Amino acid sequence: MSGDALVFYSSVDNAQAWRSALIAELPDLDVRIEPDVGNPADIRYALCWTPPAGFFARFPNLQLVVNLGAGVDSLMQRDDLVPVKFARLNDPGMEAMMASYVIFAVTRYARDIPAFERATRRGEWHYIHPRPLFEIKVGVLGLGELGAAAAKALAAMGYAVWGWSRSPKEIPGVTARTGREGLERVLAESDIVVCLVPLTPQTHHLLGAAELALMPRGAKLVNVSRGALVDEAALVEALRSGHLAEATLDVFETEPLPKEHPLWSLDNVLITPHVASITVPELAARDVAESIRRVRQGLPPLHEVDPRRGY
Amino acid sequence: MSGDALVFYSSVDNAQAWRSALIAELPDLDVRIEPDVGNPADIRYALCWTPPAGFFARFPNLQLVVNLGAGVDSLMQRDDLVPVKFARLNDPGMEAMMASYVIFAVTRYARDIPAFERATRRGEWHYIHPRPLFEIKVGVLGLGELGAAAAKALAAMGYAVWGWSRSPKEIPGVTARTGREGLERVLAESDIVVCLVPLTPQTHHLLGAAELALMPRGAKLVNVSRGALVDEAALVEALRSGHLAEATLDVFETEPLPKEHPLWSLDNVLITPHVASITVPELAARDVAESIRRVRQGLPPLHEVDPRRGY
Repeated sequence: MSGDALVFYSSVDNAQAWRSALIAELPDLDVRIEPDVGNPADIRYALCWTPPAGFFARFPNLQLVVNLGAGVDSLMQRDDLVPVKFARLNDPGMEAMMASYVIFAVTRYARDIPAFERATRRGEWHYIHPRPLFEIKVGVLGLGELGAAAAKALAAMGYAVWGWSRSPKEIPGVTARTGREGLERVLAESDIVVCLVPLTPQTHHLLGAAELALMPRGAKLVNVSRGALVDEAALVEALRSGHLAEATLDVFETEPLPKEHPLWSLDNVLITPHVASITVPELAARDVAESIRRVRQGLPPLHEVDPRRGY
Repeated sequence: MSGDALVFYSSVDNAQAWRSALIAELPDLDVRIEPDVGNPADIRYALCWTPPAGFFARFPNLQLVVNLGAGVDSLMQRDDLVPVKFARLNDPGMEAMMASYVIFAVTRYARDIPAFERATRRGEWHYIHPRPLFEIKVGVLGLGELGAAAAKALAAMGYAVWGWSRSPKEIPGVTARTGREGLERVLAESDIVVCLVPLTPQTHHLLGAAELALMPRGAKLVNVSRGALVDEAALVEALRSGHLAEATLDVFETEPLPKEHPLWSLDNVLITPHVASITVPELAARDVAESIRRVRQGLPPLHEVDPRRGY
């Protein structure tokens, strides 16, 4: 009889922290860290981030693959997937962390901080009369778990929040729209746009030159999802011309952002190195354990991914 | 018989916006804008910001003075006060605006943004592994209406929040302390300290060299109350030596901050020109109208100030 083990693979996450966190939640779980996998037939669950090609086919009894993060684009684009259940990680810790980054980036613009940063460097007391938050229109593109949490947090702070997503959503305090027309309205009516759309073949370069041109002159963009959602060449042009006043970017078409990339030279861009949200094992292990319990009972895992939809 | 009028005085606020907002709330109110005061005996209420010396004594039937702002230190330090009721403004709009500034400043530090700002200027991808918010200790000094709202908002975001105030407070999610020992513990245990204490003769230079030295090396300070709560010379020294890593300052001992002040030359200080919170007439007029209704009925106004306590 084969076992009931989990294989862990990641070149960036702390395997021992994950093992401890998983065992605290599910003491009977047999956690094996690649390459110490033992008998491949024992493996029922994989918790992994960008494993090498052919990884999944090694485990004949695999039932569940949990992606070590919320964005499953790199997993869904593989050509070596096996017909098992797929799930993303999405725990309250990730939502709180993503919301904190979005709140920071939006509030920095809402409170005119870039102008004050420049004035501080010039040594100049430059008064700008504050605008009340309810006058500031924030558009959140993507209302999945992270996007909805960010939109809700912004609305609770007092911003006027519009949202856009593929399927209709109901979020208290947020006017949610769908479809191409909905996207164009949210872009045209927002002072600040936050991008939290999942990357799929359909959303690649969702924001190109035409879409950026719809945003009002002086608008600001925050991208915390995936770099390829935005056409970077068009974004550089919009930021250079002043059509977009500012951008906060945590993700890029190529990461790390190459030394010679023109984004580095723009003084109206804040660049962070893909840190907006990370998974804290202590918090996320609860969801992984619950997904394993559910799959053992023949139920779907938490945060299941639909490979046909791509997210 | 004398009238039942309000006199408005401010050299910085929009008198017509206030008149409209007050009349929308209290249609029978006779609003007179200095210098068009008419018969001084008609004036029962004053809504004012730093009126000239002798202003109050001109109105023999004055019953209520509402300060156009939350900080009443400049009002309480006057030697021409008359024995009437005093109130500050404190509306939900001010609380939301102050909370947004505090959340911005704290989250900028919690998410390592100053390091990323510097890396962006150097054109360098500089990865720092994010810390979960619950590991970041924020101390809020002053738990009045604005301080309590900010502390509550920070706790709701997931920070570990300690508070300190003159009198004991109960705020969900916030460990509140009092007394000199409480102050010293909050300073010693916080990664980020936010100052929202009212300025009185007792709190002048509350944070001097000794208190700043209690903060852990690398701590950050946010001052959004009054400049004179902090000994600026000691603060400059702590920021120069690196004992304090960063500061966000919205208020200063002298405003505008003089051109030659050493704070301008420190690259670990973000200076904003006293904009953390302002009063929005449309929102604040509701409270002023309610205070007038209460005083007409012989009741105390909202947000009453105790001149003996100084706030």
